[in-house]
Amino acid sequence: LIKEYEGEGEEYVPTLGIPDEEFASLKKHITREEIRVVTLAKLKLRHDMCLWDVGAGSGSVSIEADHLLPNGRIFAMERNEQCLAFLKQNLNKFHTRHVTLVPGEAPDCFEDLPDPDRVFIGGSGGNLFRILEAVDTRLPAEGRIVINAITLETLTAATEFFENAGYQVEVTTINIARTRPLTEYKMFEAYNPVYIIVGEKG
Amino acid sequence: LIKEYEGEGEEYVPTLGIPDEEFASLKKHITREEIRVVTLAKLKLRHDMCLWDVGAGSGSVSIEADHLLPNGRIFAMERNEQCLAFLKQNLNKFHTRHVTLVPGEAPDCFEDLPDPDRVFIGGSGGNLFRILEAVDTRLPAEGRIVINAITLETLTAATEFFENAGYQVEVTTINIARTRPLTEYKMFEAYNPVYIIVGEKG
Amino acid sequence: LIKEYEGEGEEYVPTLGIPDEEFASLKKHITREEIRVVTLAKLKLRHDMCLWDVGAGSGSVSIEADHLLPNGRIFAMERNEQCLAFLKQNLNKFHTRHVTLVPGEAPDCFEDLPDPDRVFIGGSGGNLFRILEAVDTRLPAEGRIVINAITLETLTAATEFFENAGYQVEVTTINIARTRPLTEYKMFEAYNPVYIIVGEKG
Amino acid sequence: LIKEYEGEGEEYVPTLGIPDEEFASLKKHITREEIRVVTLAKLKLRHDMCLWDVGAGSGSVSIEADHLLPNGRIFAMERNEQCLAFLKQNLNKFHTRHVTLVPGEAPDCFEDLPDPDRVFIGGSGGNLFRILEAVDTRLPAEGRIVINAITLETLTAATEFFENAGYQVEVTTINIARTRPLTEYKMFEAYNPVYIIVGEKG
Repeated sequence: LIKEYEGEGEEYVPTLGIPDEEFASLKKHITREEIRVVTLAKLKLRHDMCLWDVGAGSGSVSIEADHLLPNGRIFAMERNEQCLAFLKQNLNKFHTRHVTLVPGEAPDCFEDLPDPDRVFIGGSGGNLFRILEAVDTRLPAEGRIVINAITLETLTAATEFFENAGYQVEVTTINIARTRPLTEYKMFEAYNPVYIIVGEKG
Repeated sequence: LIKEYEGEGEEYVPTLGIPDEEFASLKKHITREEIRVVTLAKLKLRHDMCLWDVGAGSGSVSIEADHLLPNGRIFAMERNEQCLAFLKQNLNKFHTRHVTLVPGEAPDCFEDLPDPDRVFIGGSGGNLFRILEAVDTRLPAEGRIVINAITLETLTAATEFFENAGYQVEVTTINIARTRPLTEYKMFEAYNPVYIIVGEKG
Repeated sequence: LIKEYEGEGEEYVPTLGIPDEEFASLKKHITREEIRVVTLAKLKLRHDMCLWDVGAGSGSVSIEADHLLPNGRIFAMERNEQCLAFLKQNLNKFHTRHVTLVPGEAPDCFEDLPDPDRVFIGGSGGNLFRILEAVDTRLPAEGRIVINAITLETLTAATEFFENAGYQVEVTTINIARTRPLTEYKMFEAYNPVYIIVGEKG
Repeated sequence: LIKEYEGEGEEYVPTLGIPDEEFASLKKHITREEIRVVTLAKLKLRHDMCLWDVGAGSGSVSIEADHLLPNGRIFAMERNEQCLAFLKQNLNKFHTRHVTLVPGEAPDCFEDLPDPDRVFIGGSGGNLFRILEAVDTRLPAEGRIVINAITLETLTAATEFFENAGYQVEVTTINIARTRPLTEYKMFEAYNPVYIIVGEKG
C-alpha cells in the first residue's frame, strides 16, 4: 500500500526527501530538498487535511505532501504552460494518489475547490495580495498559510498582510550550504536564503 | 490506521514536523524541528527499512521516522538514564509502532540487533570512531549513515572516517534563525549551526 | 601619530577589529566585532567626512571609525544615561580624536550639528521614521545611511522609507558562528543574524 | 598624507571597504568586501607590524591592509602569472605605500623576507602544510595566522596543524547574502560560506 516508484530495478522513492534531480523542472524553479521538507514541517499537516499548493511549479511540494496526507486532498495550481507539462509528468512518475492538478491563475482558480485547511504559496506571480485575500475568505480558524519568499518584497508584503488580518506570524530564515559530491575537494556551495513565513489564522 | 495522538481533545500530531515542545527532554538536548526533518530527508528512508538511531536522546528522530517506515523497524539506543526516561515517555505519548528502545552503550548494544539499512548518529558520547567502525561491519552496500555534528571535531572525525572507508561523503550546513512568536517585535534568533554529514557505502 | 592604547604594558589596540570585550557596555548591547567592521565597510568613509552615529550605545562603531576618519568628524549621539557613562569611559580609554559625544534624543539633538556625509543608525528607540525624515533633510546627494536591523519591523520600515524617498537600497544579511575558544571541543555558536541596510541618496 | 585614489574626478577610495569591482581580477578570485574586512579585523594588525599575504591573488587584502599598517610592511606573494599582472595593476591603481610584491611560490619565496608578525593565507595551491610549517619557524610568540577556507579539506588541515603545533584556534563561519542592486525586486543572493581560521602562537 506504500507509494513507491520503481525505476530501473534498483531505484526507490524515499518516504521523505526526494532528490531534486528526480523532478522534471525548469532549471532553478524547484524548491530544494531541504527547504521542501522544512516547508512541509511548517505546514503541520494532519492525515486528512485539504492542502492548496498555489504556484505548484514542478509539483515537488505536492508530491512529497501526498505521502503525508493519506486521507487528505491536495490541489496543485499552476498557470504556466511549461510548468504544467513538467507537473503532469512528475505526478505520473511518482504515482501520487491525492493530488489534483488545477491549471489556471490564482485566485480565480480557487472558485470550484473545497476549502483548504492548509495553503502553501510557493509562487504568486505578482498577485500575492489578491491571493492572500481570497485564501483568507476560505480558510477556517486555526488554518495555516505557509509562504516561501526569496525577495524582501514578498517577505514584507506577506508579513504585513498577516499582521493586518490578525494572523499569528512566524518567520524562519534558512541558509544552507552543501558540498558538491563530485569535486575532489569538498567545497561548500550556498543556496540562496529562503524565508519561510507562517501565518496562522486566529 | 494512521498514527495519531489525541491529547486534550483538539490536539493532533502532524504527520511531519512535531513541534519541539511536544517532546519531554533535557533542555537543549533535542534535535530542532527544522534540523530533524532535514536529517530524515537525508536518511532517504524506504518504507521497509531498518533504522538504527544511535544516541537517540529524547527520541524525536525515531518518533518522526516511525511514520516514514510503516513496514520497517527502528532501534533507538540510549545510555543516559535521564534521557531513557524521557525517551520512554515520548514513545508512549506518540504511540510509535515500529520503535524498539535499546538501553545501553553503543557500539556494545549493537550485538543483538538486526543489520541496519540506515544509521543516524545524533550523539556519540566520545565513541564516534568505535561506533562508526562497528556500524561499518554491519551496514550493507548502499547503506547510509547520517551524523549531526555541532563541533568541528565531530565534523572532522566523521568526514575522515568516511573517506578512509571509501564512502561517498556529502556535508550540508544549516543556519536557521526564527522570529520569536511572543515578542512585540519579530526579532530573529539564530540556532547554532548544524553539520549534517552523509556517508554512503560504496 | 598613530592612535594607540597602551594598557598594562603589553596591550595594544588593533587598527581594525577591537575585540568586543575591550568595550565597557551593557551586556549584549554592543555591535559585534565582525558586524562592526562590515558596517564600517558599508559606510564607505572618506578620510575627511562627517559621520553621525545615532544611538551610539557603547560607542564601538564611533571608536573604530575614529581611525578611518583622520581628517573628519564623528558625532556619537545617545540618550540612555547608562550607555552614556559607558560611552564616555570608552572614548577616554581609546583616546579618540574626532568623536564628539552628543547626549540627547534623536532627531532633536541633530539641530546644532553640522550636516553629515554618512549616518549610522545602530538604535532608534522607536523613532526610526522621524529620525530618517530628519536625516534626509540634512544629508547631501550621494550621502549614505547605514542601518543595522535585528527585527523584521526595522528591516521593513527602513527599506520602505528608502524606497519612498528615492534612495538606492541594498540589504546584506550576515549569519556568523564562532567557536568558543575556551571549551575542549570547538562548538560553533551562532550570533543572531543582522541585516545591514544601506540607503544611498539619489 | 592620506592614501587616496582620484579617478575620473569624483571617485574616491573609502578608508575601509573598497568595492570588489574596483579590483582588476580573475572572475571570482577575489576576497569579497565583507569577508575581506572581517579577515583584516581577525588579523589584529598593529600600525607597525609586518604582514605576509600568502597567495595574494588580486591583492585586495594587502591593499586594504596598507592603510591599516601606516608604519608597517606588507609582502604580497603570488605565483600565478595572470594574478601577478592584476596584482601589479591594482597596487598601482591604489598607490599602496607599504606593499612589496613577491612573485614566486610559497614557502620557497619566504627566504629573503623579514619575519612576519601576522600572516594571511588566502590561497595555498595545495601546499598548505608546508607553508604552515615554514611560517611557524618564522613567526614569533603571539604571532597570528589567519586562513580563509572554502573547502572542508582546508578547514580540517588548518585546524589540525594549529592544534598539533600548540596554537590557540578560533574558527568563524560567515554566511552572507546580499540583495542585487539592479533588479526590480530585491532578491537575496548568497555568497558561498567562508571559514576564517585564526591560529595564535602560544
